[in-house]
Amino acid sequence: MQRCEVLSRCSEESDRLTRPFASDAMRRAHKLVTKWMRDAGMAVRRDNVGNLIGRFEGAAGHDVTLLLGSHLDSVRDAGKYDGPLGVMVGLEAVQRLHNRKLRLPFAIELVAFADEEGLRYGTSYLGSRALAGAFDPKDLDLADAQGVTMANAVSTFGGNPERLAEDRWSGGRPLGYCEVHIEQGPVLEARGLPVGVVSTITGFSRSSLTFTGKAAHAGTMPMDRRQDALAAAAEFVLAVEAEARATDGLVATVGQLAVSPGAVNVVPGGVVLSLDVRHSVDVVRVEHVRRLLQGAQDIATRRGLSVHSQPVDEEDSVACSPRLTSVLARAVRDLGHPTLELPSGAGHDAVVMSRLTDVAMLFVRCKGGISHHPAESVTEDDVAVAIDVLSKFLELLASDQ
Amino acid sequence: MQRCEVLSRCSEESDRLTRPFASDAMRRAHKLVTKWMRDAGMAVRRDNVGNLIGRFEGAAGHDVTLLLGSHLDSVRDAGKYDGPLGVMVGLEAVQRLHNRKLRLPFAIELVAFADEEGLRYGTSYLGSRALAGAFDPKDLDLADAQGVTMANAVSTFGGNPERLAEDRWSGGRPLGYCEVHIEQGPVLEARGLPVGVVSTITGFSRSSLTFTGKAAHAGTMPMDRRQDALAAAAEFVLAVEAEARATDGLVATVGQLAVSPGAVNVVPGGVVLSLDVRHSVDVVRVEHVRRLLQGAQDIATRRGLSVHSQPVDEEDSVACSPRLTSVLARAVRDLGHPTLELPSGAGHDAVVMSRLTDVAMLFVRCKGGISHHPAESVTEDDVAVAIDVLSKFLELLASDQ
Repeated sequence: MQRCEVLSRCSEESDRLTRPFASDAMRRAHKLVTKWMRDAGMAVRRDNVGNLIGRFEGAAGHDVTLLLGSHLDSVRDAGKYDGPLGVMVGLEAVQRLHNRKLRLPFAIELVAFADEEGLRYGTSYLGSRALAGAFDPKDLDLADAQGVTMANAVSTFGGNPERLAEDRWSGGRPLGYCEVHIEQGPVLEARGLPVGVVSTITGFSRSSLTFTGKAAHAGTMPMDRRQDALAAAAEFVLAVEAEARATDGLVATVGQLAVSPGAVNVVPGGVVLSLDVRHSVDVVRVEHVRRLLQGAQDIATRRGLSVHSQPVDEEDSVACSPRLTSVLARAVRDLGHPTLELPSGAGHDAVVMSRLTDVAMLFVRCKGGISHHPAESVTEDDVAVAIDVLSKFLELLASDQ
Repeated sequence: MQRCEVLSRCSEESDRLTRPFASDAMRRAHKLVTKWMRDAGMAVRRDNVGNLIGRFEGAAGHDVTLLLGSHLDSVRDAGKYDGPLGVMVGLEAVQRLHNRKLRLPFAIELVAFADEEGLRYGTSYLGSRALAGAFDPKDLDLADAQGVTMANAVSTFGGNPERLAEDRWSGGRPLGYCEVHIEQGPVLEARGLPVGVVSTITGFSRSSLTFTGKAAHAGTMPMDRRQDALAAAAEFVLAVEAEARATDGLVATVGQLAVSPGAVNVVPGGVVLSLDVRHSVDVVRVEHVRRLLQGAQDIATRRGLSVHSQPVDEEDSVACSPRLTSVLARAVRDLGHPTLELPSGAGHDAVVMSRLTDVAMLFVRCKGGISHHPAESVTEDDVAVAIDVLSKFLELLASDQ
């Protein structure tokens, strides 16, 4: 936690934590993490995209590798733990092995991913994409807010943008990937548990809906002749909320809504809004999206408006590996804590890493479920449990080999 | 209507009509209107604020004056008739007197107001305020989007900003003020009537409401633990609509709504929205505003949010003069048209002129109730009726003197 505190000062902004991909703030963070990794007995390298990777060799004659990791980049005005905590917990577990001069029957590579949040280029998972061989070279042409292309940012940071394909994992079939992360939700807190084992990383569907009515003078257009796009959108917002409330495990959110023309004395003629729908079972999610969009159509028709919806983004759920997850759950149990399996509502590097290998995730309780905010908070006790669990996980995996 | 067409080319923008206060576009419009006024036998002057005033003398020995008028400025991307039509109809009525070499037992002053829409300085009724002696000299310090102060704009246009008080009407007690204007609403069209007589110019209350909930991750915050400010605001939008639909003569509009933080994957933590409520009876309006704000409070409390409301602007209803209105209605009747008295939902120069003298207004049917839009449209037949009615009104007033 002290190290998360120290890292939080590696920021682009003096008064708050903002650490984008390939920034100077990231460079300073790398300097610190490199030293800590070396102190824990790791050989450190950086790949072209900017992942910092510490390798802790296994016992002689064992060339299989377990991957641990999380990300070092942040959102704007971030908390200290979303990302870095997972790297620091991995670091501490390796440190313990190093202190005891233990070698496991597998090597460990601890990856501090270069970009998960997508703050600088609007594309998330840049680091894990490169490692999993899923990086799209077209992204190199994207420009940040200052007009700096990703290719430029990569080379300024010390990588070779033309050799990103070489970042792809080449160490043979890994044993798996395990990520520790704050929950970013209130479930563990509500259950009084320090940690939880992730069952699934929930998929999502994102759509953009445009309601088109007719702008009119707020003083002269009688109520019964209005085609008010905002009133229609308001009905839709409440329908989304009602549908999700009535469906176990479904969350649905209208997070953006823009009114046009947007004048105090004009009946709204148009509204564009976003819809984000998540459920750990993909077919359930897809069916509810269909129902909600049909509902939007019904609202618009009844009110004499039109509505147009457009899919924006979609990601299927990723199931964590039953094998690794059961070992992780056993580690939690062995340490005397109740085990809770819970889905992850947020995406993580593990989503992309699942294309490369089996994945598992351990969640750490965070205060009020708050994340992406300076108020992000974890307790020392809970972090200690997470380190113990990860160490136990390594021990159990070793005895299984 | 041809003259409205010609005037519509006096615009700041080449592809659409935008004619702000004290602009070059207005200067070109003044040049045309000055000529037309002179052709109709009027003496033309311009006051300091930039009202263009044509005076048609009455018969010898009569020094009372009837004021006619409307405004020459426009909104951005305006229609051709909102404002100019009233000036042109007045011009035509005077032209007929001039053609017939008639003098009435009162003078007529036709005022082309300098600013009613408030496009350039965000303050409406600049022209009528100056004439009615209600101009606030503090407004002279306001700056437009280019940083030009109103004082500067006034002197560039040829007026003396220090002598605005002299614009105040000083011709003795006027006979009244009569304004012809497009309806900007759909009532006359629905009733199949070319013109209507305004009973009241409806007052309004404007408030700003801020709903404050708690921003949260759209994927991890369960539905039953959310404090979604947009869902609360949506309930409010529908409550506003329902209240107005259930109350005769009440119109209520949420025209602006802004969500924060406004990200697709974040449950909205805050919403700021505008509320505009109008009813021709002030106490009814005030009571419904009170009920709606109480309703917002109830919604917020039930959802565990807070709401703060703030009055922004308020204007009481202005009753048109029963005396002038009955003459206007008689003129309509005498010409063989059914008379309809209707409230004006929009504000007009007549609101401010009511501080100086009795006011009356004649509405002209407009297509679809559309205004503040290039699609603004009137028919030649309806405009002819308006000119006939105004001429008849002058005749009836003259015989009453």
